[in-house]
Amino acid sequence: MSALEFQVVAEDGAARLGRLQTSRGAIDTPAFMPVGTAATVKAMTPDAVATTGAQVILANTYHLMLRPGAERVAKLGGLHTFMNWPGPILTDSGGFQVMSLAQLRKITESGVVFQSHVDGSRHELTPERSMEIQHLLGADITMAFDECTPFPADKDEVARSMHLSMRWAERSKSAYRERPGHGLFGIVQGGVHTDLRTESAAALTGLGFDGYAVGGLAVGEGQEAMFRVLDRTVPLLPGPRPRYLMGVGKPDDLLGAVARGIDMFDCVLPTRSGRTSQAFTRGGAINLRNARHAGDPRPLDAECACPACTGYGRAYLHHLVRTGEILASILLTWHNLHYYQDLMRDMRGAIAEGTFAAFADGFATRQADGDIEIN
Amino acid sequence: MSALEFQVVAEDGAARLGRLQTSRGAIDTPAFMPVGTAATVKAMTPDAVATTGAQVILANTYHLMLRPGAERVAKLGGLHTFMNWPGPILTDSGGFQVMSLAQLRKITESGVVFQSHVDGSRHELTPERSMEIQHLLGADITMAFDECTPFPADKDEVARSMHLSMRWAERSKSAYRERPGHGLFGIVQGGVHTDLRTESAAALTGLGFDGYAVGGLAVGEGQEAMFRVLDRTVPLLPGPRPRYLMGVGKPDDLLGAVARGIDMFDCVLPTRSGRTSQAFTRGGAINLRNARHAGDPRPLDAECACPACTGYGRAYLHHLVRTGEILASILLTWHNLHYYQDLMRDMRGAIAEGTFAAFADGFATRQADGDIEIN
Repeated sequence: MSALEFQVVAEDGAARLGRLQTSRGAIDTPAFMPVGTAATVKAMTPDAVATTGAQVILANTYHLMLRPGAERVAKLGGLHTFMNWPGPILTDSGGFQVMSLAQLRKITESGVVFQSHVDGSRHELTPERSMEIQHLLGADITMAFDECTPFPADKDEVARSMHLSMRWAERSKSAYRERPGHGLFGIVQGGVHTDLRTESAAALTGLGFDGYAVGGLAVGEGQEAMFRVLDRTVPLLPGPRPRYLMGVGKPDDLLGAVARGIDMFDCVLPTRSGRTSQAFTRGGAINLRNARHAGDPRPLDAECACPACTGYGRAYLHHLVRTGEILASILLTWHNLHYYQDLMRDMRGAIAEGTFAAFADGFATRQADGDIEIN
Repeated sequence: MSALEFQVVAEDGAARLGRLQTSRGAIDTPAFMPVGTAATVKAMTPDAVATTGAQVILANTYHLMLRPGAERVAKLGGLHTFMNWPGPILTDSGGFQVMSLAQLRKITESGVVFQSHVDGSRHELTPERSMEIQHLLGADITMAFDECTPFPADKDEVARSMHLSMRWAERSKSAYRERPGHGLFGIVQGGVHTDLRTESAAALTGLGFDGYAVGGLAVGEGQEAMFRVLDRTVPLLPGPRPRYLMGVGKPDDLLGAVARGIDMFDCVLPTRSGRTSQAFTRGGAINLRNARHAGDPRPLDAECACPACTGYGRAYLHHLVRTGEILASILLTWHNLHYYQDLMRDMRGAIAEGTFAAFADGFATRQADGDIEIN
């Protein structure tokens, strides 16, 4: 087995149907990865996550290095054993969250020194330590260590940050230990500046990675700017390798990104929304806290096969939300993840049939029945 | 089908192995009923509850009459459909919780007027309204409406309260609508006073019920006093009818009560403990928050077949507790309910084999490895 086999099975415009083969199983792309920040996809058992159709999950290096600690996870058999998820796991590098969550950060050429948001303890992340942590966790897909560029920022600052991330990408690659069925992804940076994105993509493809991520988007630049960056950046990434848009997004973000050639996504939106009474449906997003659902016997989404939709009416889910029951979080998270996986499956089907553009158009027109905008 | 068929299959001393046949399925006794207060066994899907071996659950009239309202539940198809639990449901009468939770209570011969603890709205519960609510919910086993006697209280006060409950029991029976496979249970009151208990049992057996509950215990009188009441009260209850000890209890409470002829139990202890990091094990109770579990790869209980024990080590459960993850509540509740159902199953097996006393002795000696007392 090569480092990480990837086969593009079909193409429809720029959209790709693919299959990524890891040592822990195959990932059909376009793929959505549920987020399991602290070694748990919140409010879900791993079995439940698998029933939604998810084939790979994401875990966060920053959270796990602080609690319970990478060395402890390794001693307990690695992340897959620890959290009882036998499938592939992608770990982020810690770069994004050390900037968004940690305190008293000091960035140098070497890396980032910071204080834990949990207990104030002092830690350091460098490209080398990030690789070591991801190895200790047992990641199937490892992300290069990068700096999270603030948004908005002067172009000079974005350039400086991107150049640092490219030097860290090179150090990440040197520190990464290759194993069959495992891979290391580089991360294209450069903010909304397409010339910087071009420079970053060239630097990474020059180094050579098993996959390429587009980072630093969905940070406030808006969907139009994000799509403009993808329009210019994705064509610069090697066709035979998987492309991953980090931290994205809403259903129409996914549709637009797949249309531009993205293969992989992760986002907390379906899980976080599920814990705040919000549900994605084929008719649009709804908030179950709304009193209009109190007497409604209909399922959340009549076309969905998840336990929330096959077992309960909206009135019951409303009741669970109003009474603050944990089962509200369980069922709505389950549904939202199921919805996202159905969306990916339907996109894959449309690409296979060469009808992706029509599918994306039809999706948008069906969203009219929602009562909220999920952000 | 008679109102509620009950067969005593075997006896071992005063302990009984039995089977209670409802229109929604059989209940093997001694049985433990998980508590589904607000139409959900907290942190569990109904499927998960069923996997623990539970054959019947309890739901609370007081909570459901306030939210979402009995008429609303009836309009939505009844409690079984509403909460997606196809098995038998026992509903309490609201009498206990209106006294422990509601505000500004006024008790008259007619019933109790009170303000909701949720929104301050005014409500009334009478024997007739309690029966109506339990019918609207669709209870398989309905409890007579009674007054919850305060503890401690003067004997005169206990007697007054018990006499009121007996008059309410008669009105409950008059208002109860008999249906095949459904039943109405009377509730023996009288506090720790065995002469009052005797009088109450005589009043109820004179009226005739489908089953007999012992109420007003586990309210602070202590296990010794509780067992003394059972020693004197249970023999007064009709042998061919099921006997239910309400709101009890800890594992050794269940063992002692089964030894005295009790057939059914309910208690929030396994579910509430599961949400507060406490787990019952065959070696005793432990608190997963304790730092000594942080690096322990062993399962909670090596003899348990629940998902928490077969999928995870104590170190992972400790991690979930420390990070405040919902999955901690899910897995520990699942385990605790599984533990309780295993205990009931093992008690039934011991009664069938005529070895109940030895089983109870052996149980006590194995509890030495616990690190906490769960109350």
